[in-house]
Amino acid sequence: MTDLSTPTVTTGPLPASTKVFKPGVLHPDLRVPMREIALHPSAGEPPVTVYDSSGPYTDQNTQISIEQGLPRLREAWLAARGDTEAYEGRHVQPADNGFVPADRLTPAFPARRRPLRAKQGRAVTQIAYARAGIITPEMEFVAIRENLGRAAMREKMARDGENFGAAIPDFVTPEFVRDEVARGRAVIPANINHPELEPTAIGRNFLVKINANIGNSAVTSSMAEEVDKMVWAIRWGADTVMDLSTGRNIHNIREWIIRNAPVPIGTVPIYQALEKVGGIAEDLTWEIFRDTLIEQAEQGVDYFTIHAGVRLRHIPLTVDRVTGIVSRGGSIMAKWCLHHHRESFLYEHFEEICAIARAYDVTFSLGDGLRPGSIADANDAAQFAELETLGELTRIAWQHDCQVMIEGPGHVPMHKIKENMDKQLAICGEAPFYTLGPLTTDIAPGYDHITSGIGAAMIGWFGTAMLCYVTPKEHLGLPDRDDVKTGVITYKIAAHAADLAKGHPAAKLRDDALSRARFEFRWEDQFNLSLDPDTARAFHDQTLPKEAHKLAHFCSMCGPRFCSMRISHDIRDEARAQVGMNAMAERYRDGGDLYMPTQESAKVP
Amino acid sequence: MTDLSTPTVTTGPLPASTKVFKPGVLHPDLRVPMREIALHPSAGEPPVTVYDSSGPYTDQNTQISIEQGLPRLREAWLAARGDTEAYEGRHVQPADNGFVPADRLTPAFPARRRPLRAKQGRAVTQIAYARAGIITPEMEFVAIRENLGRAAMREKMARDGENFGAAIPDFVTPEFVRDEVARGRAVIPANINHPELEPTAIGRNFLVKINANIGNSAVTSSMAEEVDKMVWAIRWGADTVMDLSTGRNIHNIREWIIRNAPVPIGTVPIYQALEKVGGIAEDLTWEIFRDTLIEQAEQGVDYFTIHAGVRLRHIPLTVDRVTGIVSRGGSIMAKWCLHHHRESFLYEHFEEICAIARAYDVTFSLGDGLRPGSIADANDAAQFAELETLGELTRIAWQHDCQVMIEGPGHVPMHKIKENMDKQLAICGEAPFYTLGPLTTDIAPGYDHITSGIGAAMIGWFGTAMLCYVTPKEHLGLPDRDDVKTGVITYKIAAHAADLAKGHPAAKLRDDALSRARFEFRWEDQFNLSLDPDTARAFHDQTLPKEAHKLAHFCSMCGPRFCSMRISHDIRDEARAQVGMNAMAERYRDGGDLYMPTQESAKVP
Repeated sequence: MTDLSTPTVTTGPLPASTKVFKPGVLHPDLRVPMREIALHPSAGEPPVTVYDSSGPYTDQNTQISIEQGLPRLREAWLAARGDTEAYEGRHVQPADNGFVPADRLTPAFPARRRPLRAKQGRAVTQIAYARAGIITPEMEFVAIRENLGRAAMREKMARDGENFGAAIPDFVTPEFVRDEVARGRAVIPANINHPELEPTAIGRNFLVKINANIGNSAVTSSMAEEVDKMVWAIRWGADTVMDLSTGRNIHNIREWIIRNAPVPIGTVPIYQALEKVGGIAEDLTWEIFRDTLIEQAEQGVDYFTIHAGVRLRHIPLTVDRVTGIVSRGGSIMAKWCLHHHRESFLYEHFEEICAIARAYDVTFSLGDGLRPGSIADANDAAQFAELETLGELTRIAWQHDCQVMIEGPGHVPMHKIKENMDKQLAICGEAPFYTLGPLTTDIAPGYDHITSGIGAAMIGWFGTAMLCYVTPKEHLGLPDRDDVKTGVITYKIAAHAADLAKGHPAAKLRDDALSRARFEFRWEDQFNLSLDPDTARAFHDQTLPKEAHKLAHFCSMCGPRFCSMRISHDIRDEARAQVGMNAMAERYRDGGDLYMPTQESAKVP
Repeated sequence: MTDLSTPTVTTGPLPASTKVFKPGVLHPDLRVPMREIALHPSAGEPPVTVYDSSGPYTDQNTQISIEQGLPRLREAWLAARGDTEAYEGRHVQPADNGFVPADRLTPAFPARRRPLRAKQGRAVTQIAYARAGIITPEMEFVAIRENLGRAAMREKMARDGENFGAAIPDFVTPEFVRDEVARGRAVIPANINHPELEPTAIGRNFLVKINANIGNSAVTSSMAEEVDKMVWAIRWGADTVMDLSTGRNIHNIREWIIRNAPVPIGTVPIYQALEKVGGIAEDLTWEIFRDTLIEQAEQGVDYFTIHAGVRLRHIPLTVDRVTGIVSRGGSIMAKWCLHHHRESFLYEHFEEICAIARAYDVTFSLGDGLRPGSIADANDAAQFAELETLGELTRIAWQHDCQVMIEGPGHVPMHKIKENMDKQLAICGEAPFYTLGPLTTDIAPGYDHITSGIGAAMIGWFGTAMLCYVTPKEHLGLPDRDDVKTGVITYKIAAHAADLAKGHPAAKLRDDALSRARFEFRWEDQFNLSLDPDTARAFHDQTLPKEAHKLAHFCSMCGPRFCSMRISHDIRDEARAQVGMNAMAERYRDGGDLYMPTQESAKVP
């Protein structure tokens, strides 16, 4: 069955939400999106502003046309830099779509534009601009996004957290962003061929970000489902999306996705390269891989996972592992190396990969091909041997003005998590860390969003910049859209818990607003402020469905008589009256008299 | 509608599972249950033994009759001690069931047995026996349960964890249990009127335990649903169950639950006391409360949550909180204290409560009535003021030979969790800590099993002995049986992740067995070893449902071409051959030659 040429996606704002746009200062044309959640008038509180990765799909004022793609908001910025040129580019070939027969070919995206590339000798990466002292529109966009109206809150800012040496500013300036990017501590994945992108920063001193994986496999899924999943994932909060397709139609599916993606899109190019050689790893060549890089860079892929750390010498360190090599790309490269008795072509040609990345601004995501896939293999020699190589490659990439982030584990029990963060910071020069979980136990397939959510929250707290989600289907099958949502919400929880624990100045505002709503029985506000208003409301309504119940000072957990929050209200005035008798504060007696407790008297006498 | 007099419950073993019984040595009549999960013969591995809280319901050789209740396996042990006497006891009164009209009255449990109590002056608590140097059948039962066949593994035992000062032995002896109980570092909640109980230990140096909350509310649920939930909760791994009913028929519902519960049952007696005074907190009296304690102790409740830490002087510390007092019992006591301008009757009569607990062996769960219900309130003065009082009460209870555990928070961001553990250990003399989560952010109602699973895993790692589960319905409504299961599985994950991180010698065996099964594509073994085999299998089968697929060396995540585990097998022999050329180990050259990497060469050259 052929793919429908027009996928349907979910549109419309989240409840009580309005997309607002903040203008730039250095670049006045900027329109930086964020989401305002309005509260009930009785709250007497302004709307709560939250980070918004969902793109135009949730804009109440926008018409979506998947066949046309999203507005090319960066086009003018790129043109203004004058350092790129359009060219004919590489046209799609049957190999790019896995040689599918015509009746199974996903239709091509309707429009084809000539790709851009750097003019001869120019580096068009955000890190090159940053090092040259230039604040790009992308950098200012990111600064405004990260602030979420924080300037207005400046005098009220309190810090409460443990940041393990991170340096999160009270207020993010464009200059701060430039500096973080220049020193490699943050990346802004932004391919010059992805003008539809709403830029985002990934770095330890910014809000913790999350990635959602989508993509078909040989067994299941289609372009329509994958475009729908991408829009669904960002609706719920995914900051980037990786298209990990390994089946047919990889090129055409990816085009539909990128043209409609307001978030950075990542890929693992070795997958498509493997498809081009009919699935025979040994038949991979540097030339085929290079061609695939160009193909994907021209389409606008914002970051590439490159498993250049899987060196021939490391592979024997995996032979006694319980779960071997669990990375697809890592296992493919290991197979190639062993068969040919040669060093990885990714490692050997790394500087040529840099030259490509530099010409399109594709960010490196240096792959953790030797990550542990079981508790038994955590923090072993293979894993850290690769990390050392990734550190070496980071510095080479930086020499070529390429942006870099570092991928990380995996399956790691809680007591071994911190070591990963400490080692990565030291070895990779504070390049952003991007982990898959980690899963803190192996024993719960079906619930690996939870086993890994625990590790992700912890490693995010310790300094990891982006958390790659895991869905309930991990280890069992390809995730569907329900799994995508569950994975995203779980990882938004992990990322936010990390921001809170790091003492990010803006994080706690949302928790406090929701808790006030909860305490005041503003049920709709509680739902609307939550990460998933639909589910919160539906769960409440399972037992108390009537609209009148939304005014109730109880729910079905405790009923009207036992609701502790209702009782708390009852006693609050009385308790306050007792506190207010401050004049009598020095007189304290046990028993029936009014009295004023002090901190000391509250302790054990 | 009247309750059905015979609830239906889920029976039958989990997949590939057999309930086995280990005999005692000191007490040869003991039959200590555990679960053996059989693996496919191709694995060449023995069955994996896991802790089993599910009681006779999963025994392939047992007929269940809910109207008869479970076998009274402790009856002979209690009789042999000769320190208890049967007596007429207090007969059920209309107030006990909330004055329900006859047509809404839950039928009484068919049999009524005369309750036991201590003979004059005797202390019948496990801690009294322990201090007297006596190893009870309960203590030996617990020791055998905790070992799970560990003796056989003794020589292979490796320790890999961070236990923060805990002292988990390689092999648990009955004497070790006695010592832990004697010093108050562990409890064995075991009311003399709960002879159906399969004893369990709760303490920092034992496996981390979890509790599931059930119970009706005024809005919803029934005896049949609650008995079914109890059996369902323990099937999935709940080590204790609390009946937190706050609606009608509290007494009768509880009787059906306890008579059919192989796990300790906890309650919060103030709830029923409040029902007896028509829901008017100010009308509570010590006499009514005392009568309720006796009523529940005679039924066999194994532990009471007592909010004696909510002292009059602490209450003003809550007035400026964002979410006030979120504990039902805490808010009820606070209301009473403020209204009467008097010290808590629980605090004032605490020694009389001890006398009751001592006569039946009801374990104290000293309630955290002033726990924080929002991130904003975490670790505040109110919370720690109460903790100080709980420390004082712990020592009083110990003086009376009563067993004690301490309840804990709540809502706590990650960076504030450890402080809770450190303070509790110091203030409460290492009495077992029993926390509710904690939730690490407020912003995800509908997913609070996850927000709290993160905190629970961490605080379990730091030394918390039991984790009280949270379900997806937290803050929104009463959990149904699906929510109960989700909460239990989530908390089994948290508890096991904690055991792993503490370096518990037996924990990793299950992860390793499952990961081997995964790596070898023994799909059924992977499912059967997991915490929820039904869900794991169902998720897999959503995309690959045929029986032949259970032999497949891939799943729909990656398909046959991209499965990293399959590829890992392909390369393993080749990689091993290269390693095996050990004679050439000293000779290393880049490029095409065979070589032997050493640790040094694996690092960056």
